[in-house]
Amino acid sequence: MRSFKQNGRSTANENGDSAINLGRRSLIAGGSLFSAGLAYGAVDSASRVGDLQPDSMLAPGAPFTGYGSPSPHEANVKRTASLPYEAIAPGSGASRTPLERLNGAITPNGLHFTRNHAGTPDIDPAGHRLMIHGLVKRALRFDMAALDRYPMVSRVCFIECSGNSYANGNMFKAAPQWSVGDIHGLVSNAEWTGIPLSTLLEEAGVGAGAAWVLAEGADGAGLTRSIPLSKCMDDAIVALFQNGERLRPEQGYPLRLVLPGYEGSMGIKWLRRLKLLAKPAETREETSKYTDLLSNGRAAQFTFAMGVKSIITRPSPGLKLSAPGYYEITGLAWSGHGRIAKVEISTDSGQSWVEARLDALDQPMALRRFTAAWHWDGEPATLMSRATDERGNVQPWRQQWLELYGAMQAYHCNAIQSWRVERSGEVSNVFV
Amino acid sequence: MRSFKQNGRSTANENGDSAINLGRRSLIAGGSLFSAGLAYGAVDSASRVGDLQPDSMLAPGAPFTGYGSPSPHEANVKRTASLPYEAIAPGSGASRTPLERLNGAITPNGLHFTRNHAGTPDIDPAGHRLMIHGLVKRALRFDMAALDRYPMVSRVCFIECSGNSYANGNMFKAAPQWSVGDIHGLVSNAEWTGIPLSTLLEEAGVGAGAAWVLAEGADGAGLTRSIPLSKCMDDAIVALFQNGERLRPEQGYPLRLVLPGYEGSMGIKWLRRLKLLAKPAETREETSKYTDLLSNGRAAQFTFAMGVKSIITRPSPGLKLSAPGYYEITGLAWSGHGRIAKVEISTDSGQSWVEARLDALDQPMALRRFTAAWHWDGEPATLMSRATDERGNVQPWRQQWLELYGAMQAYHCNAIQSWRVERSGEVSNVFV
Repeated sequence: MRSFKQNGRSTANENGDSAINLGRRSLIAGGSLFSAGLAYGAVDSASRVGDLQPDSMLAPGAPFTGYGSPSPHEANVKRTASLPYEAIAPGSGASRTPLERLNGAITPNGLHFTRNHAGTPDIDPAGHRLMIHGLVKRALRFDMAALDRYPMVSRVCFIECSGNSYANGNMFKAAPQWSVGDIHGLVSNAEWTGIPLSTLLEEAGVGAGAAWVLAEGADGAGLTRSIPLSKCMDDAIVALFQNGERLRPEQGYPLRLVLPGYEGSMGIKWLRRLKLLAKPAETREETSKYTDLLSNGRAAQFTFAMGVKSIITRPSPGLKLSAPGYYEITGLAWSGHGRIAKVEISTDSGQSWVEARLDALDQPMALRRFTAAWHWDGEPATLMSRATDERGNVQPWRQQWLELYGAMQAYHCNAIQSWRVERSGEVSNVFV
Repeated sequence: MRSFKQNGRSTANENGDSAINLGRRSLIAGGSLFSAGLAYGAVDSASRVGDLQPDSMLAPGAPFTGYGSPSPHEANVKRTASLPYEAIAPGSGASRTPLERLNGAITPNGLHFTRNHAGTPDIDPAGHRLMIHGLVKRALRFDMAALDRYPMVSRVCFIECSGNSYANGNMFKAAPQWSVGDIHGLVSNAEWTGIPLSTLLEEAGVGAGAAWVLAEGADGAGLTRSIPLSKCMDDAIVALFQNGERLRPEQGYPLRLVLPGYEGSMGIKWLRRLKLLAKPAETREETSKYTDLLSNGRAAQFTFAMGVKSIITRPSPGLKLSAPGYYEITGLAWSGHGRIAKVEISTDSGQSWVEARLDALDQPMALRRFTAAWHWDGEPATLMSRATDERGNVQPWRQQWLELYGAMQAYHCNAIQSWRVERSGEVSNVFV
């Protein structure tokens, strides 16, 4: 029988002599956790069952609100903003989702990451228009009341900034000792509802020779990206709703593009204009920015789909393990190429792997929550996750990723992330 | 060629002479809407494509925020609170989701409906405990730090108040001319993440003879309900997260039960105690309340699963149709017995039906968005939706429902809802 120490109190595990041997850095693959004989090591004494009722039961609580907010006890669960170019480009920066504080797969709207190039504009929907022009049979212009009447579809999908996980170049230097959100929090997941872009383009009539669509936002940056017409006709959405309600201002209110699986900057926010073109527009955002510097000295352009990727969100830096015993390893996996097929977990720096359990919410190009049961024996351990998508793409090792790209490549970083657990229970970011 | 009037401007529909005859109250079943030759009747003039850039492009926008809020232009999208018993039971009432203003299937956390019996308590998670006692092998008591370490699962499911759609008895009197949210807004949908209750019960060890679990909340009402042990072992969740973040206070922060498909009041919020019993406790909330008065004079008890149901959220009362032409009929369907198999739509008061399109997010015991294309010819029409679940349960007519229950039955109202569209475009609630 093993015993577990928690909160200064020992409790016995009645199932400690189970048939399954929980060896060093054990991962339990599949099956019932309880039948594996785990004591969760976190059970308080039973002697206090007869406690008095808490104060909250002694009087009526707060009245109803029209629109709710998180508990004041969660006030520290916030996005972290960084504005590295504020002096030369006001409002250009990013605000990251605190992934280590969340669970499930949906990102609540208040915490969806934001990447702005010139702040968040205040747009009155009464004055907002969407134009479709260029190589079309008839140019069209819509107000929001018109768009509200169009057929809409909903889908859950992730949006990931192309520069996520780059960590200001630290992928090429030293592993940053930041939280998961601060390193990898430029990805979020929501149910998006809007008009299939194909519907609007078919109404305009795609003109001869059209092969690209230039999308422009109504923000101070006038952000523009060129999108292949094929993507626009396939699964692009002109979104009006996010997790059921109208888009949040920082997510493009009242109108944005959602391009499932594609790098976030192409999902133009505050969408005001779509121009059909024969060739890509070669805007600043696809020439000097959002191209991939390769190790052979060349640059790859138009690498739109985000690679297969996974991140362990817990345990992770800042979340100290209090004592040896049972822990649930959990995290998120996603791929711009479709569904997640499997996620493997290693606790011995990649020497051995077991498959994680995947949660029920299984949508293509969406975040998927994974979990794995782990008994930490108190010795140092290095945790990794490795995702494979339904097309067989496998998340690369950091060295593989580094060999592909040149120094200071800022985009499409999907390398395996390793967390080191020390004897003290501290968790740090390590390069292996 | 038909012409459409919108915003005082006419535009021609190039596809008006399509092969499909859009007759009176036409519903277009399946296939591409555009290929059906619909002009959406809402296209502005093309002459303004060269418009100047809007003001929002002329300067940087607002800075990043740690936790986002809806646009100020959406300030009127709120829950509606009613407190009919405030004088005798402070904080007892409900706050309804404005379903007519939402789209997709997920309910944003700020707008999830609330039914409180004594307001929303302010609970500090540092002091909160969950006890499991009664017919168990060992009584257990957990603090939140302990619960945080347990294995968790996520699932999307609806929660519906048993008294939803009852409309303060109006089902037996006159059709209330209220919004969809005010009539049917005691249902919402979220991704819930937490510990399978079976895990905690297995750890406590289910004692001989245990067949029911009494759950108690830490609110001023000390709300208690008896739940069959079988449900607790099957799919009940002790939830800590809602749409990714910690529960909202009015949804039970820091801990609530989620019983997929079961009436909302059993999903005890601010959960503090689970007592295993041989028989139901017969609390006030399952004797004088939450029982079903039948037309034969008897009362049915323990009718937990919510019936198969659907509601057209648009068009609906308060949302006036501006002119004849294309409209998307859209709404939500759900069943406490599993997945939605189909939703049928009628625009002629139930004489004929076509099948609606169902959105991709298909989860058991979850809201499912449906849509159907409709060409309104300007004549009066009566819109209905009728859902069927995977077990073959069919949503009843209002008369069928009334025949089953006695006058003033307040619970489990899942009758077909009819909306009347007048020539003026006004939409009203009608009994047919």
